[in-house]
Amino acid sequence: MGSTKRRDAGRPRGAPVIDAVMAATLDELGTHGLAALSVERIAAAAEVNKTSIYRRWPTREALVAGALEYVLVDFESAQEDTGSLRGDLLVLARAIADFLATPAGLALARAAFAESSSAELTALAGRQFARGTAEPVGGLVARALERGEWDRRTPPEVPLSMLVGALLHRTLLEHQPVSASWLSRVVDVLAAGLAVRP
Amino acid sequence: MGSTKRRDAGRPRGAPVIDAVMAATLDELGTHGLAALSVERIAAAAEVNKTSIYRRWPTREALVAGALEYVLVDFESAQEDTGSLRGDLLVLARAIADFLATPAGLALARAAFAESSSAELTALAGRQFARGTAEPVGGLVARALERGEWDRRTPPEVPLSMLVGALLHRTLLEHQPVSASWLSRVVDVLAAGLAVRP
Repeated sequence: MGSTKRRDAGRPRGAPVIDAVMAATLDELGTHGLAALSVERIAAAAEVNKTSIYRRWPTREALVAGALEYVLVDFESAQEDTGSLRGDLLVLARAIADFLATPAGLALARAAFAESSSAELTALAGRQFARGTAEPVGGLVARALERGEWDRRTPPEVPLSMLVGALLHRTLLEHQPVSASWLSRVVDVLAAGLAVRP
Repeated sequence: MGSTKRRDAGRPRGAPVIDAVMAATLDELGTHGLAALSVERIAAAAEVNKTSIYRRWPTREALVAGALEYVLVDFESAQEDTGSLRGDLLVLARAIADFLATPAGLALARAAFAESSSAELTALAGRQFARGTAEPVGGLVARALERGEWDRRTPPEVPLSMLVGALLHRTLLEHQPVSASWLSRVVDVLAAGLAVRP
């Protein structure tokens, strides 16, 4: 299972307020999106004054950038060696699907697809999301190559786009749940499609 | 190649103004997105008064809904029987990629992924997009089944999510061009993954 860890270690004093504001900002991003974001609602949800927010994050952009950077997309536990490419893909896919179902995951995904008027934030969200999903793929590919399950002609970014893209399409566009059977079929197609071809 | 046709047939008088406003609204949606949309900019781009826009489309929502419905997502010409599943997938994928590169396609995709504060418009964009991409898949699947190239256990919505999702991931999240070689690899994986498995 993937998890969204908060960076608690080594936090300075005042961290509970930061935690509350960052969590509220991610909730707001996930439900209302980047352009309709309201600092008023964030302050109310975090139970702080708007002025305390503006003291730390002088602009809306700084607040959102802070929140997006605060999300530690961590699929380390999804790097399990299950003994087969199919199994490894399934663990990773489930972790990404679970992450997309959290407020932070939804916030990152929505921000990454947001309008280009906030190009920098969109790029930041995209980088955060891409880094988190691309990281565990290295090990998965190396194991699959060693097992002879991966055609060397297929670069890792191709199935990564297909897997993450399918999950985004399913959840954000079709608004359908990522069921075990749907996920299993996606992974079937991927694993068979990546196999060494004559 | 897919194309975005404007519904010109049978348009009432005043159609040039409608065309200009709808085109400007789609441009605005593609570049600034749903939440940051400016009727002022649309009026300027379409060279009409804001009041003429509000006369026909009393609200921002009505204007956007009109523009989204105006896009006729038409991949009819992408339903070509090339003689193989791989070929058919390549034609469809190229058509969708080309559509996503147009202002109307970008507008639909961005609106479909937009924040839930405009849930109805988001749903409308999603439906328009999904209908357009799902339509040509029926024929493609039927031909592949007949040729024995498609494992019956895989429902069509699985590769559709993988193909459309990969294109969205590539263009809107990674901001990478859909090159012929990238597309060819995606289709290789899909066709091989969909093949009848023992």
